Amino acid sequence: MFEDLNIYIYTVCNMPEIKKIKPSLPKGTRDFLPAEVARRNYIFDTIKSVFRKYGFQQIDTPAFERLETLTGKYGEEGDRLLFKILNSGDYLKDVPHGDWLNKNSNSVIRHISEKGLRYDLTVPLARYVVQHQSELTFPFKRFHIAPVWRADRPQRGRYQEFYQCDADIIGSTSLLNEIELTQIYVEVFDKLGLSVIIRINHRKIIEAFLKSLDFSMSLGESFLTALDKFDKIGEDGVRLELKKLNVAEETITLLMAFLLGENFLDKFSDLEQKTKESEQGINELSFVLSKFNKQKVKSDPSLVRGLNYYTGIIWEVVLDKENDANNNIQIGSLGGGGRYDNLTEMFGGRDMSGVGISFGIERIYDVMEELNLFPAELGETTKVLFVHFDEASEAYAFEQLQKVRAADIASEIYPGKKKLDKQMNYANDKKIPYVVVVGGDEMASGLLTFKNMASGEQEKLTIGEIISKLK
Amino acid sequence: MFEDLNIYIYTVCNMPEIKKIKPSLPKGTRDFLPAEVARRNYIFDTIKSVFRKYGFQQIDTPAFERLETLTGKYGEEGDRLLFKILNSGDYLKDVPHGDWLNKNSNSVIRHISEKGLRYDLTVPLARYVVQHQSELTFPFKRFHIAPVWRADRPQRGRYQEFYQCDADIIGSTSLLNEIELTQIYVEVFDKLGLSVIIRINHRKIIEAFLKSLDFSMSLGESFLTALDKFDKIGEDGVRLELKKLNVAEETITLLMAFLLGENFLDKFSDLEQKTKESEQGINELSFVLSKFNKQKVKSDPSLVRGLNYYTGIIWEVVLDKENDANNNIQIGSLGGGGRYDNLTEMFGGRDMSGVGISFGIERIYDVMEELNLFPAELGETTKVLFVHFDEASEAYAFEQLQKVRAADIASEIYPGKKKLDKQMNYANDKKIPYVVVVGGDEMASGLLTFKNMASGEQEKLTIGEIISKLK
Repeated sequence: MFEDLNIYIYTVCNMPEIKKIKPSLPKGTRDFLPAEVARRNYIFDTIKSVFRKYGFQQIDTPAFERLETLTGKYGEEGDRLLFKILNSGDYLKDVPHGDWLNKNSNSVIRHISEKGLRYDLTVPLARYVVQHQSELTFPFKRFHIAPVWRADRPQRGRYQEFYQCDADIIGSTSLLNEIELTQIYVEVFDKLGLSVIIRINHRKIIEAFLKSLDFSMSLGESFLTALDKFDKIGEDGVRLELKKLNVAEETITLLMAFLLGENFLDKFSDLEQKTKESEQGINELSFVLSKFNKQKVKSDPSLVRGLNYYTGIIWEVVLDKENDANNNIQIGSLGGGGRYDNLTEMFGGRDMSGVGISFGIERIYDVMEELNLFPAELGETTKVLFVHFDEASEAYAFEQLQKVRAADIASEIYPGKKKLDKQMNYANDKKIPYVVVVGGDEMASGLLTFKNMASGEQEKLTIGEIISKLK
Repeated sequence: MFEDLNIYIYTVCNMPEIKKIKPSLPKGTRDFLPAEVARRNYIFDTIKSVFRKYGFQQIDTPAFERLETLTGKYGEEGDRLLFKILNSGDYLKDVPHGDWLNKNSNSVIRHISEKGLRYDLTVPLARYVVQHQSELTFPFKRFHIAPVWRADRPQRGRYQEFYQCDADIIGSTSLLNEIELTQIYVEVFDKLGLSVIIRINHRKIIEAFLKSLDFSMSLGESFLTALDKFDKIGEDGVRLELKKLNVAEETITLLMAFLLGENFLDKFSDLEQKTKESEQGINELSFVLSKFNKQKVKSDPSLVRGLNYYTGIIWEVVLDKENDANNNIQIGSLGGGGRYDNLTEMFGGRDMSGVGISFGIERIYDVMEELNLFPAELGETTKVLFVHFDEASEAYAFEQLQKVRAADIASEIYPGKKKLDKQMNYANDKKIPYVVVVGGDEMASGLLTFKNMASGEQEKLTIGEIISKLK
């Protein structure tokens, strides 16, 4: 206690002049209002309940990691987007004289920063699994829902702080995992009321296919440029461009079949170029597909996913047009994932194949908002508000409130003396569905005025009757 | 899709050599294992349910704030402990030549960092309330549970990343708020099974008292040094030291009464030095105290709290010795708070008196762990595990599992072919209470072996009977 007194007196006697500043946030970050938090929690809780039902356990890791853990994992662009934390104290003292004189941000950085904010939840998972290997049960089924940070240029719908939501299974090569992860996608989006298409593909098929095209990087760039124009110039345009590049007619046909084909798997099975590996890919993909409704879970040969560590089945979830007849919603994938074999290797972990999916929580939020899919009662916080006219009725109302709370009903009393309409506004603004009005009559009779805020109906009830109604 | 393909091919062709590093964390930070997360969630969920019952709504703010928002709010020491984030890109380019030549960490900082990790949840609240004033319902009752970061020297039980958990009411001077916050303390600790003493005091009384002692800073420092020795040299020792400082006998007696006294309020009411303000303090404190059991909620004149912005009632929660007969647990306060009048002023907010409490979640966790207060079933994740012997029984078990999941029971199948004892170990390690064994007999008869892992008992049941048992 004396330590506190000491600090208190010190601070009272050394109060800094408070400089007034305009309240604002760093660009690319957001505050969340209570109604937004309630809707975000609804998404988080729905996903968590499904993860738990499938035996996944929640973990957590620190917001910042050693820079050594993070750098080199996300490509050059990723390294650039890492938020770096300045060392504490006299952080410049270890910068060598030469680097200092050059004033070069790149060469100075390693001497003044050792930590960075996490960029995703995947590299921390790899580190965690290797570091805690002896404390975990394998196959290790974990989920992690947490913010990550990227120094991206902020723009509409893209933030420097955003949540990721991942479920992974580490240490099992069984395809049952792929099936269960697909089931989780189906069940979560079903619970959220969002109709989606789950596209799946297999990395080994893509690799065999690219090999079969004699794909080489010398051809590659112009080739990709041509493909990139697909949306603008269509199939015929791309065919023409590829011809100009002297790509063989046969290759072009294969490529179009690959990208646009229905029944692609059947066609591919007939190809001469198939290898042992691509055959494994086809078998695995067919096995997983066989467990699901073909309208909901679709093989998509053009799906590749952006990350280089995938080695098996890959997923991507997109909005089903059926949600959005007018095709107004322009949004990317709502989830994605895949199997990876070597993720823990960078931290010395061996033979730990993993497979995982993630939910694009920020986009799911935006789509649900746009389609008006959040339950109306999410805005409701408190079930009932007690309002009053003076000190006596406030005290009486406070006593009655205790009985409502004893019945575990979320309830409030308006604190302090304000006009009745002000108190009623409070109930309206907070979407409190019922109000109990306490005045002299009510105190005399013990019959309280119980008002339904939506219908405007009022009735006189005892506190016991009110509690029964609210339950 | 072509964008992805592009990135994929780029990364495959430019794979960096993966440098292996030993997995480790920055000092002062922690990973959380699944069992720890479950216990932490138990504490969070208990507190949240009580906050919501009292009408508090959850908000969130970004992990980092503008440095301008944070600096100067926590004293010199606090400024030193802020984690600062390096600006992106060529962060050295704006450092003036003169500052650069001096290589002075303090003068360079403002040119290379604009953001810092939040140090607590209180300053972000003040900023939030002023910034979103027009979007909030006042009195604004919010709670916020989130990590904060301080560059403290790490030591046993003290971390650089830890959670804070606050509830505040902004925009109401009614003492009902103080009463409700005290009720929340009582209810939460009751639900957690922790017996605590809630100490309360009033800043206006402390201030009047210090004034009455003619307390001045010239005397102050030696005075505080003397008080600081209280634990070591006891009352007599402190009396002696104060005498050496020429503090009047009468003042010393008052001070001792202040710090050690029972029935302090009565004594203080008799003092001549009482002022209008201290009288208000005494009235408010007496009013709040009158609503609670005197063994649980105690007036404590020596309670001052370390923060300089409090202006009214203040709280501190400590462990009741009744939990801990042997007095083995050395731990500080489990919670604290108070009323503050001018918190939003630094951001231009006016007339917004606030009052709030916080829960020391990390300490509550440690005490509950030490006293073994977490419910045993918290470790349980999945209700039942299906185990199998070969491909056929795995496929059969998987079909049965679907029925269990359809009944919303958390359940798993061991993925892949492993010996039965390995599969049983998985159930034991994950504390899964029941196992269903599926082999040839079970498939032929439809009667599955249902094993209680705690008792070792086994019975043969249909899947329907198993579902009824598990429900």
